[in-house]
Amino acid sequence: MRRQTLLLLLLLVAAPALRAQSNTSNARAGIDALNRKLEDATRRMDNDATIALWSDDGVSLLPGTPPIRGKAAIRAFVDGVTRSMPAAHMKSFEMHCFDIISSGDWGSEWCTEHQVVDFGAARAPFDGWGKMLFVLHRAADGEWRIQTEMWNQALPDSTGTH
Amino acid sequence: MRRQTLLLLLLLVAAPALRAQSNTSNARAGIDALNRKLEDATRRMDNDATIALWSDDGVSLLPGTPPIRGKAAIRAFVDGVTRSMPAAHMKSFEMHCFDIISSGDWGSEWCTEHQVVDFGAARAPFDGWGKMLFVLHRAADGEWRIQTEMWNQALPDSTGTH
Repeated sequence: MRRQTLLLLLLLVAAPALRAQSNTSNARAGIDALNRKLEDATRRMDNDATIALWSDDGVSLLPGTPPIRGKAAIRAFVDGVTRSMPAAHMKSFEMHCFDIISSGDWGSEWCTEHQVVDFGAARAPFDGWGKMLFVLHRAADGEWRIQTEMWNQALPDSTGTH
Repeated sequence: MRRQTLLLLLLLVAAPALRAQSNTSNARAGIDALNRKLEDATRRMDNDATIALWSDDGVSLLPGTPPIRGKAAIRAFVDGVTRSMPAAHMKSFEMHCFDIISSGDWGSEWCTEHQVVDFGAARAPFDGWGKMLFVLHRAADGEWRIQTEMWNQALPDSTGTH
């Protein structure tokens, strides 16, 4: 009886620590998967795929723009951008992320991005660099999504590694 | 013996939940305290007080600027700003923060800020609005500090509530 009790106690004490360790590596894989999906959706300018990566109550913080709160408002914003540039085609999009951390169902990372957008013959391509800071949340379905995003301009060739 | 074992088991099972609840309210109070200190240090343009609010490996992400990594680099940056504007005096600084969350020793919030800086008779005052996204970390000393900060421009009168 005493041995069984001791074993049970040890299991009870050790279980949260083992679960936390497993959650951390799962979290890293889940956040990496989110980043690949975000890169892919942005490259294809696929607004449905992009919006699926957001939390329902997500907030997008863009320069010179009021905070955009909630999935419906973010959807309306990205659809507006796409509509205003019907000839736009994402020629290349690259994203590098740093300092990925997670604690329970919350995480964060900051990333640099470089995009080249073609507009056909009528207009010169757009070649832009940016930095992003993300707060991430793992939803009930186990998928990591964007809870809060902020963007600002980066210097060309800034990979965040210098 | 059986009753004692049961009580011990119940305590072991319940303790993490009770601790988590207490941590959450402690976290909110700690993050509120950090915000008040940050407002106060910014109003006084007190770089020592500002730098004390940063994690040692914190990262500041400012527009058109490479990522500033680590307390020493952030210190050098803010000291450079202060040196370049010897006549500057913070006339007013207000900050409003939203969506404060925490999980264990990690937290986040986004804020809007409005600052008016006087430069004496030689130059017109600067009246600027910004948005900030913070990733926060509670250090071993129990104090919440800034782990990652990003800033971008806000529209005038944007309190983040609309």
